[in-house]
Amino acid sequence: MKKRIENVKIAYIGGGSQGWAKRLMNDLALEARISGTVALYDIHPEAARQNAKIGNLLSEREEAVGKWTYEATGDIQEALTDADFVIISILPGSFQEMASDVHVPEKYGIYQSVGDTVGPGGMIRALRTIPIYKKIAESIKQYSPEAWVINYTNPMTLCTRTLYEVFPAIKAFGCCHEVFDVQHLLADMVEEATGEKVERRQDIHVNVIGINHFTWIDRASYQNIDLLPLYKQFALKYAETGFEKEPGSWERSVFSSANRVKFDLFNRYGLIAAAGDRHLAEFMPPVYLESPEKVTEWKFHLTPVDFRINDQQSKMERTQKAAAGEEHFELAPSGEEGVAIIAALLGLEELVTNVNVPNNGQIANLPKGAVVETNAVLRFNSVQPVLAGSLPADVHGLVSRHVANQETILRAALDENRQLALNAFINDPLVEPIGLKQAEKLFNEMMDNTKEWIGGGFSHDQNAYASS
Amino acid sequence: MKKRIENVKIAYIGGGSQGWAKRLMNDLALEARISGTVALYDIHPEAARQNAKIGNLLSEREEAVGKWTYEATGDIQEALTDADFVIISILPGSFQEMASDVHVPEKYGIYQSVGDTVGPGGMIRALRTIPIYKKIAESIKQYSPEAWVINYTNPMTLCTRTLYEVFPAIKAFGCCHEVFDVQHLLADMVEEATGEKVERRQDIHVNVIGINHFTWIDRASYQNIDLLPLYKQFALKYAETGFEKEPGSWERSVFSSANRVKFDLFNRYGLIAAAGDRHLAEFMPPVYLESPEKVTEWKFHLTPVDFRINDQQSKMERTQKAAAGEEHFELAPSGEEGVAIIAALLGLEELVTNVNVPNNGQIANLPKGAVVETNAVLRFNSVQPVLAGSLPADVHGLVSRHVANQETILRAALDENRQLALNAFINDPLVEPIGLKQAEKLFNEMMDNTKEWIGGGFSHDQNAYASS
Amino acid sequence: MKKRIENVKIAYIGGGSQGWAKRLMNDLALEARISGTVALYDIHPEAARQNAKIGNLLSEREEAVGKWTYEATGDIQEALTDADFVIISILPGSFQEMASDVHVPEKYGIYQSVGDTVGPGGMIRALRTIPIYKKIAESIKQYSPEAWVINYTNPMTLCTRTLYEVFPAIKAFGCCHEVFDVQHLLADMVEEATGEKVERRQDIHVNVIGINHFTWIDRASYQNIDLLPLYKQFALKYAETGFEKEPGSWERSVFSSANRVKFDLFNRYGLIAAAGDRHLAEFMPPVYLESPEKVTEWKFHLTPVDFRINDQQSKMERTQKAAAGEEHFELAPSGEEGVAIIAALLGLEELVTNVNVPNNGQIANLPKGAVVETNAVLRFNSVQPVLAGSLPADVHGLVSRHVANQETILRAALDENRQLALNAFINDPLVEPIGLKQAEKLFNEMMDNTKEWIGGGFSHDQNAYASS
Amino acid sequence: MKKRIENVKIAYIGGGSQGWAKRLMNDLALEARISGTVALYDIHPEAARQNAKIGNLLSEREEAVGKWTYEATGDIQEALTDADFVIISILPGSFQEMASDVHVPEKYGIYQSVGDTVGPGGMIRALRTIPIYKKIAESIKQYSPEAWVINYTNPMTLCTRTLYEVFPAIKAFGCCHEVFDVQHLLADMVEEATGEKVERRQDIHVNVIGINHFTWIDRASYQNIDLLPLYKQFALKYAETGFEKEPGSWERSVFSSANRVKFDLFNRYGLIAAAGDRHLAEFMPPVYLESPEKVTEWKFHLTPVDFRINDQQSKMERTQKAAAGEEHFELAPSGEEGVAIIAALLGLEELVTNVNVPNNGQIANLPKGAVVETNAVLRFNSVQPVLAGSLPADVHGLVSRHVANQETILRAALDENRQLALNAFINDPLVEPIGLKQAEKLFNEMMDNTKEWIGGGFSHDQNAYASS
Repeated sequence: MKKRIENVKIAYIGGGSQGWAKRLMNDLALEARISGTVALYDIHPEAARQNAKIGNLLSEREEAVGKWTYEATGDIQEALTDADFVIISILPGSFQEMASDVHVPEKYGIYQSVGDTVGPGGMIRALRTIPIYKKIAESIKQYSPEAWVINYTNPMTLCTRTLYEVFPAIKAFGCCHEVFDVQHLLADMVEEATGEKVERRQDIHVNVIGINHFTWIDRASYQNIDLLPLYKQFALKYAETGFEKEPGSWERSVFSSANRVKFDLFNRYGLIAAAGDRHLAEFMPPVYLESPEKVTEWKFHLTPVDFRINDQQSKMERTQKAAAGEEHFELAPSGEEGVAIIAALLGLEELVTNVNVPNNGQIANLPKGAVVETNAVLRFNSVQPVLAGSLPADVHGLVSRHVANQETILRAALDENRQLALNAFINDPLVEPIGLKQAEKLFNEMMDNTKEWIGGGFSHDQNAYASS
Repeated sequence: MKKRIENVKIAYIGGGSQGWAKRLMNDLALEARISGTVALYDIHPEAARQNAKIGNLLSEREEAVGKWTYEATGDIQEALTDADFVIISILPGSFQEMASDVHVPEKYGIYQSVGDTVGPGGMIRALRTIPIYKKIAESIKQYSPEAWVINYTNPMTLCTRTLYEVFPAIKAFGCCHEVFDVQHLLADMVEEATGEKVERRQDIHVNVIGINHFTWIDRASYQNIDLLPLYKQFALKYAETGFEKEPGSWERSVFSSANRVKFDLFNRYGLIAAAGDRHLAEFMPPVYLESPEKVTEWKFHLTPVDFRINDQQSKMERTQKAAAGEEHFELAPSGEEGVAIIAALLGLEELVTNVNVPNNGQIANLPKGAVVETNAVLRFNSVQPVLAGSLPADVHGLVSRHVANQETILRAALDENRQLALNAFINDPLVEPIGLKQAEKLFNEMMDNTKEWIGGGFSHDQNAYASS
Repeated sequence: MKKRIENVKIAYIGGGSQGWAKRLMNDLALEARISGTVALYDIHPEAARQNAKIGNLLSEREEAVGKWTYEATGDIQEALTDADFVIISILPGSFQEMASDVHVPEKYGIYQSVGDTVGPGGMIRALRTIPIYKKIAESIKQYSPEAWVINYTNPMTLCTRTLYEVFPAIKAFGCCHEVFDVQHLLADMVEEATGEKVERRQDIHVNVIGINHFTWIDRASYQNIDLLPLYKQFALKYAETGFEKEPGSWERSVFSSANRVKFDLFNRYGLIAAAGDRHLAEFMPPVYLESPEKVTEWKFHLTPVDFRINDQQSKMERTQKAAAGEEHFELAPSGEEGVAIIAALLGLEELVTNVNVPNNGQIANLPKGAVVETNAVLRFNSVQPVLAGSLPADVHGLVSRHVANQETILRAALDENRQLALNAFINDPLVEPIGLKQAEKLFNEMMDNTKEWIGGGFSHDQNAYASS
Repeated sequence: MKKRIENVKIAYIGGGSQGWAKRLMNDLALEARISGTVALYDIHPEAARQNAKIGNLLSEREEAVGKWTYEATGDIQEALTDADFVIISILPGSFQEMASDVHVPEKYGIYQSVGDTVGPGGMIRALRTIPIYKKIAESIKQYSPEAWVINYTNPMTLCTRTLYEVFPAIKAFGCCHEVFDVQHLLADMVEEATGEKVERRQDIHVNVIGINHFTWIDRASYQNIDLLPLYKQFALKYAETGFEKEPGSWERSVFSSANRVKFDLFNRYGLIAAAGDRHLAEFMPPVYLESPEKVTEWKFHLTPVDFRINDQQSKMERTQKAAAGEEHFELAPSGEEGVAIIAALLGLEELVTNVNVPNNGQIANLPKGAVVETNAVLRFNSVQPVLAGSLPADVHGLVSRHVANQETILRAALDENRQLALNAFINDPLVEPIGLKQAEKLFNEMMDNTKEWIGGGFSHDQNAYASS
């Protein structure tokens, strides 16, 4: 098809972001079939303005075949009005709260490799994020109820869940690239086993089933090759050493791993865990996260917030240069799927990919309404999950525990019910081992550190009963 | 992908057929990526043998890029053993029973355009077919439990339903081309409205939701064009005249129509009915089938069984010539999807198309377990229906009546419960208007005509109570 | 228990009624354990005032052991505020509209024995009633959200359904005495078969499953006697003659029957239909309602609205006399269960009886949310339906057709969608036989007759398409 | 009703038991309305013979108004044939295996107060019990498919689940008296709060929702008193001291407690936990079972198997005396409900009580098919659970974890899949804190101790992968 679609409007909430926004601008510039306007909304309008400058400079470049106008705004109504798409990618709170999420639990012996999804950090972050998403959902309901809403913020599940809870008719879904990395890993495995090079990540077909960052693959194929038996050998072979295309490369980046956690999970549960090791480890009891030394043994990393602060700093400097036209960067596909998804929803292609939406039967043995991750067929104005089947009993046990905790956190956040939040908190597999009293102490400390972001209903004395 | 897959075995039950088998042979010959053996099983082995001869002659032709060996057999175990695929396309009973199905009700003022799905004919045919499918399911369970089973026989819904009832772990689905014709119609509509030629039927994206031959489309698009508003105008414009690409062409074939039934259903229910008019008409009260004259007014046809007998005769003559090598025919795509489906299940491509399988949530407001028709994603060794949504309340009323009747007929056939069969029979919208007594008389007459094909448990005096 | 509960407040919507209100006053006077206030609200305040007078006179009588104060009001807020119970029993519209519901279809050959539940009359009545119930639900939500709401108005199913649609947290259920009559019939049967007298209707245990007035019993027992085999003989024995305790008594009252319809349904479907014959007949195609003569043959009655008008007139005269203290009447149990239900909800006893509430699994094969009738356990502030099981396939077909029509009518009424209402109308088994064109004509005539009671959105030209 | 029912046959599997069997004999003797035969089946026929002697002696006593003949048999076919009821109460394995279940984990720091439901002991016991129940289910299917089957054996949930898995049409349910004790506690609370004596346990109405031994009450009433607010004060008041009618009495029996665990659970979760503290404690992380000292602080007991052995010894001695007619005991109601249940199923009364059956919607947010505990209405030949509602999100998290583990154990036992059993084992809240390696060591040790009772498929080397 040579169809071209013009005058598309994208509202970007968190438009001052240093990461996702830029990847989107890049990918939009490389997609010749679509053009229009991107409204960058941010509570830090200056950051949005700099991104707008970069975007508009980029759009002027000849090799930018997709032409877009970028506008920064601090007014969410203006951003949303007439939007065809709303992308949400925000930092809930600041690095200060994130530091509390990640590092305060370390005083209690709890190590988290990311701290933004589950575990003590993920839960407190969720309590902070849900009120923000409540407001975003209300704004979308008011200003752009027909727009497609794509969420990138973590905790993905609870962000998406909140949007639907507040505005049930919303056309929203969450996107995550973690599955892609597993497809790449499987492609590497195919190459090792057959000598044949897999051309496109998408040629590795996987059945995705689970919740974001704790997603599983129970069927995988490449052409007519069933990849599960291959993976069984692969996971045993590399159980101890891990597998990397370039051996040792996991040590170079805080985001990398040697896939040992994934292999161990397969050897124990028989399914391919489909996220990065640093995410997977957080959903399990502290097997992989017992201590920083264990983390190194399992060949992945903790992600200190200091690292994030420094990384952010250097990104901002590059942003300033780029906005001033002082830095040139090459246009290249980011590996993200956001623009392909937009193209599909505009009717330009049919796409089967993994999305996060409320369960309506796509996973038979998870509760209706819980936000789950499975494949879906994306077409013009349509996202239809496929029936992904059921999780096996033991994996169901692992996943449904987090589903229950997430539902509890949602209720706690919306009702500002401190006891309920605590009850979810102590049921987390990373928290449970420290015992009820320590857990409660940790909870109180973390809640104090985030108190500006949560409702007054959460105040401590509301807690009808404190275990002594 | 240039992948080639060899040594595929297809078992064809009903391998002596004059229609479907030949289309399959044709399409297999045109698919270069797959080769293997087709075992043609038939209770009339001579017919299968002739088809085998034709198939093998065809395979020798140079332009036949897909090379297959055809073998006829009267032994189902031999046919099924080691089969990767089982295709079922049979005539349940003979034209004699079909004549009873279609024409006996005419004495009571009931006209049927096909008589093989619902209505008095479809129901009696189902009572005859279910025992045959029970045996087929048992054979598949025994000899080829891992094979993919593709059904083409009508009544599609009850054939597929029986396979799953008898062997719940079967990997079966029903395929039907009726939706394709509606995609062609929508493509014609797009051309009329925009002047633009739609290249491929598959570029018309539709959300299929319903039961076989009474399927509905609630979302349709071409590129970024929403086709529902267009169809609204189209259906009103052609409500009286009907629409055909070549005006008047509907009169030339007993299988053709001018789509007036479809337009009328849209104008009343707001959804696109997605089957040929002759099928759709049978699911409704006798609006379109009130009399042969009304059928002509609505611009479609009754299908007399005499026509089928003559047609069969001429096909058989051509078959004999072809088997003797005396008739040459051009290889050309049949328009059917069977081979594309096989290719997808072998991992050669990803295909989104409509299939008939038990409802496991793909249609939210039809009962679990009922065989329904929706889109599915087909991949290597995998058929995953998409979540198609819900039928609107009024259409749900129309469809669920037949779903209940079909479930009743299934129970009646498996238990040989005559009263239960009668209770379904009198609840059919074509039967209901003639009243209970006439309906019971008709039922008894039709049951007598098919008594050799149904179990002895159905004998008349089992009927504990006859309305007087 | 000798517990006494004082200061209970009951709000009675339709408090001017000539029937239900009086039975309630009677039964309240006979229940020594409860006392308080009844607020009689009516859009005809004078009628409510007369009932209040009667109630207060009654309460003064010595034999009235339950002491209540009756107050009439025309202000729904006043009536509802502080109410513990809300009873709703209204006439939607006037006898004029009811005459249209019942008698206009007769011109088209459609006879209805009641005309207030399904059939053309029931459907049009529903379109008139739903807007009234929408307002009542909104008032309850505002003024007495914690009150228990007991509905007696027909169409029972759609009245209750509307209450839940508008105010999902409402504590409402519908009560109907039709099942009681069948318990009495079964008691008579037990006496005939065993010579033993059944002391209390409640000792006949039945499993109730279906929708109001089209309820079924698939299990029935008295002590350790399974009543189904007995009923099988009974229904055959009296299939032709009907059964009455006093032969011929059915002729004396328009509300009576000889149970021939019930027996015929059992003989055909194998379940005990659990409502009066005049209600049951309306849910079926015109077998029993083919003509007034057929109705007589089946030994039940049509209920002319003239009869109701005269009946009402004589009741009103008696009301006036009673309010003036000129007529004495004996206190005696009415046979209704309203007061026993109130006692159970106040914690004075545990009661298992049949109620109408949204399906939440109590009937496995009817849709969630549809209002269904099954048994429930009633206790202090609690109504819990029991799991009643599934309807057999053939009966499911009969019932689910009406469930779909009711859902369609609800949607049509709330959206004021004329076409949708028509689509339900023509799918009714009494309407279907007259054909689409006649049905549409009848629909238009009936809608005209009730146009003052339905929203302007229903105006005729909204109908995008009229079949010609 | 004065109905008498004779010739009832009860088959008692585990008929040599020292506890349950005697209570049943006692209660049968006190029920004048029923008489018949009890077949005592046991794999230790001598024990059954002694019980038969006791039963027959008892039946001869004048005050025994219910007359029964007791027969011992070692032939299950003989026991089951013609049975109206089957009662199952067995010890799976011997005290030797039970000692391993309860005490081996203590070496790893895991203390269990009972060890027969969940926790390491409950899980290993389940692996041993499921094969026995598989055989029992097959026997019932063959010899008494229409009988009502009442289970008393632990683990209750998995015993009942296995019966339904193997014979889905079985009419089985599990009975447990733990809820009764909570009703007694609530009655004591009412007396303390109001000074009024509650006459019958059954007058405390509770809504039971959960799984056996981890059941919850979210609504409770006595007459018109809502007991939840009362319990809130009660649980706070006695949080530290515990509550007993006779202070200090908890120390006298290993089966007693001061309800501190129940109060703590209420204070944290807001629902009344409805089982003894020693059962409840095992479902939670080691808060209450941290150490023997903590158990004493929480005022309940561990139950050493030595105690059971001694207790059994003294019971057997009394049995021998009783069988020899040397010991007289008074007939008095046991407090159990078995005979009342039998009376209800025979049609003599209607009973609302708590039962364990597969979930078919009675608990909205637990999986279909899982065995759950809720109230049910019991009548002639009928057990119908009531719709109990949903567990709140946090309690759902606690309960569903065990539901998933139980499903995993069932699969593991039926498939003899050692890895699957281990995966459930390590997910238990008592096991999780000791870490994966220790847990695996413990699992292996316990499996070795029970290896005679589990299938050969469980052999160690089947474990494809052992974490190192």
